[in-house]
Amino acid sequence: MEHVKILLQESDLPTHWYNVVADMPNPPAPPLGPDGQPIGPDALAPIFPMAVIEQEVSRERWIPIPDEVRQALLMWRPSPMFRARNLERALGTPAKIYYKYEGVSPAGSHKPNTAIPQAYYNKLEGVTRLTTETGAGQWGSSIALAGRMFGLQVRVFMVKVSYQQKPFRRSMMETWGAEVFASPSIHTQAGRDALAKDPENPGSLGLAISEAVEEAASRADTKYSLGSVLNHVILHQTVVGLEAKRQMELVGEYPDVVIACCGGGSNFGGLAFPFLADKAAGRQVRLVAVEPTSCPTLTRGHYAYDFGDSAGLTPLLLTYTLGHDFIPPGIHAGGLRYHGDSPLVSQLVHEGILEAKAVAQLATFEAGILFARHEGIIPAPESNHAVRVAIDEALACKESGEPKVILFTLSGHGHFDMAAYDAYFAGKLQDYDYPEEALQEALQRLPKVPGRC
Amino acid sequence: MEHVKILLQESDLPTHWYNVVADMPNPPAPPLGPDGQPIGPDALAPIFPMAVIEQEVSRERWIPIPDEVRQALLMWRPSPMFRARNLERALGTPAKIYYKYEGVSPAGSHKPNTAIPQAYYNKLEGVTRLTTETGAGQWGSSIALAGRMFGLQVRVFMVKVSYQQKPFRRSMMETWGAEVFASPSIHTQAGRDALAKDPENPGSLGLAISEAVEEAASRADTKYSLGSVLNHVILHQTVVGLEAKRQMELVGEYPDVVIACCGGGSNFGGLAFPFLADKAAGRQVRLVAVEPTSCPTLTRGHYAYDFGDSAGLTPLLLTYTLGHDFIPPGIHAGGLRYHGDSPLVSQLVHEGILEAKAVAQLATFEAGILFARHEGIIPAPESNHAVRVAIDEALACKESGEPKVILFTLSGHGHFDMAAYDAYFAGKLQDYDYPEEALQEALQRLPKVPGRC
Repeated sequence: MEHVKILLQESDLPTHWYNVVADMPNPPAPPLGPDGQPIGPDALAPIFPMAVIEQEVSRERWIPIPDEVRQALLMWRPSPMFRARNLERALGTPAKIYYKYEGVSPAGSHKPNTAIPQAYYNKLEGVTRLTTETGAGQWGSSIALAGRMFGLQVRVFMVKVSYQQKPFRRSMMETWGAEVFASPSIHTQAGRDALAKDPENPGSLGLAISEAVEEAASRADTKYSLGSVLNHVILHQTVVGLEAKRQMELVGEYPDVVIACCGGGSNFGGLAFPFLADKAAGRQVRLVAVEPTSCPTLTRGHYAYDFGDSAGLTPLLLTYTLGHDFIPPGIHAGGLRYHGDSPLVSQLVHEGILEAKAVAQLATFEAGILFARHEGIIPAPESNHAVRVAIDEALACKESGEPKVILFTLSGHGHFDMAAYDAYFAGKLQDYDYPEEALQEALQRLPKVPGRC
Repeated sequence: MEHVKILLQESDLPTHWYNVVADMPNPPAPPLGPDGQPIGPDALAPIFPMAVIEQEVSRERWIPIPDEVRQALLMWRPSPMFRARNLERALGTPAKIYYKYEGVSPAGSHKPNTAIPQAYYNKLEGVTRLTTETGAGQWGSSIALAGRMFGLQVRVFMVKVSYQQKPFRRSMMETWGAEVFASPSIHTQAGRDALAKDPENPGSLGLAISEAVEEAASRADTKYSLGSVLNHVILHQTVVGLEAKRQMELVGEYPDVVIACCGGGSNFGGLAFPFLADKAAGRQVRLVAVEPTSCPTLTRGHYAYDFGDSAGLTPLLLTYTLGHDFIPPGIHAGGLRYHGDSPLVSQLVHEGILEAKAVAQLATFEAGILFARHEGIIPAPESNHAVRVAIDEALACKESGEPKVILFTLSGHGHFDMAAYDAYFAGKLQDYDYPEEALQEALQRLPKVPGRC
């Protein structure tokens, strides 16, 4: 029998999260306030619990995972790793392809890895209500589940285009007891302003963040929970990479290339950062973030200070950005429709430590269907971006004859994305090019930061 | 840390299927031909491969699982077992609740356990094309996947009410490369006859079986694949119960009661039959099949010879039946909408060895939502029937103070059933009583079997 599953036991669940800041060649650029000065932890206190803020600014390499969080993660973790033998054979590649599968969580993606600790820390500090945004619905589902587990009420602002494309993600959140509104909504000033300008506004992650942050900042019982971008979120996601390293050890392999899709950066950072620790220690390993050509943040964006949300309520973050008011085309990989990126991922790409690639929508679905037909699992459209690059790497190995070891994260299943597959089969999907002019315009619209040029 | 997952390694995948016939007190009643005489294996040859027919009539206790089949099953097996600690706490029960989770398969249910070997045996005998029926779409998805894995074309007749309720199950089958038609369809005589009588016919499993069998019988390159009811199907599903027994051993437990939902019987038999072997050897264990009150085959049906399909194309089977032309109400547990049941399960219920219970639709959704909110996983509506009875048993333990061990199969996830949950939340679901008059009418319509009264 060929081994295809690499499983860990409950006792292999990591006891600590890995903080990449400890191994970065330069300290992370600080977030700035409206005055252009670095903000202190207190500035975040209205919207985040203190434990989360401490993690956000921590430089400790290892941060212990509370027992209650580990207990909750055991519901589905450690997650399985698979060797994609059938796909390898179909491609005729000498490469070995491994994938870490995060679709086994109840919400169907990696997102609960951070939803659980965020809900836990809020509960611990007496918060009773959480607000958040969601794109494809993966994050909203995850915080709905985590809120329920720790007895918190949850209100989700869901990007309207996804709300319409994925009605059953909404049902899922409601089954776990959350309230869900399409964003822009009439429930916040940011939402009402956006609707006044354009009643047909399809929404964006940036705008939904504005709505969720506005509401959290205005209510004492409520805090905000973010599903990606920030340091603490990626920190929580490193359980993925830490488990993956252990699983690679079990089969006596080490990856030549590590691949994950990248929207706000937590899926990519969660897998890649624990490998970056080895790279920092001199090991050869390529770490590749994959994004859509329709929202090419890392590959074509400006590396600049910008807001994390469209209304400009958040601190300024140094990030690759397409402009905080950019509304990406309605591609089906809703989780990758974000104008910016993680500051940590951005800085490490800027410093040449991480690689970034952009791929077009049609090519990602083609890859996902090939994967589904040989490996069984139907991937989420976001995950198809990683599948595409993994296949391209494997085909390059076929050309060169190199038996490279390729590792990627299959960050979620596509059970709530079948309408997208339908559209693909019906020839209704298209590729979108991000126009050069838009990039120039975005440059003009970047916020002026006092004291910086 | 409390242990919640009980995992097996790849090497724990069973090497043999368990055939309950070897441990039954009486031999199974034979299927009959139109002349009232037991049919021989040859009568099934036009629609099934010989290897499958041999398994259908085998009395061997252990039947080896081919290596190629075990290799394919490793894609997701062995499946996990969980202790439902959160649910136990929420119920305040002294009972221990364990569930075997079959939703981890690529198709999201237990069905691929038999789809894989059926596709394999067909491939081995030179078949290039399979037809089948599907209710909720779980089976159709599974045979679409299995067909793809072994290079067979697949055509699925999907019960119209499910085709309409679950469009994304169709997309899933198409992603794996299968053709899907709503049944009744215009592609077969059985379908055309049904449509001529009633163009609004919502379809039934029995009718979809007629369509699939008719097409298989009329084409030399095509055979038929059945997702439940027959002996070989349940045989293939015993990997579930065999793994579950091993997992119970690992935690030093043995169940007092074993529960699974029951439509055609393969999910129930797959879990329960390996425990029946112990019961036959004197061990105390209750084995409970759960069905909907709207289609109460085992609890209220006639124990009689009847056809397996609505058009009367199949051999006559001795089964609990509501009449082969019964069209059950359009409940959301599509996989439980079958007029008959497995002859093996029926006989063992008839002999008092197995128990059967019927539960109403609303109570099953209430149970499923309670489960989802405490255990995370959103169950398929079919699985909610088992959840309901498991919860009822746990509540009875709360009354009595008995710390019983309860085991059930969570046969699938509900990712393709969120419209049903939506309808439940909107107050649009109802319970259906199966009227006594219908039962009396069904008795009149049972086929006359020559030589029997």
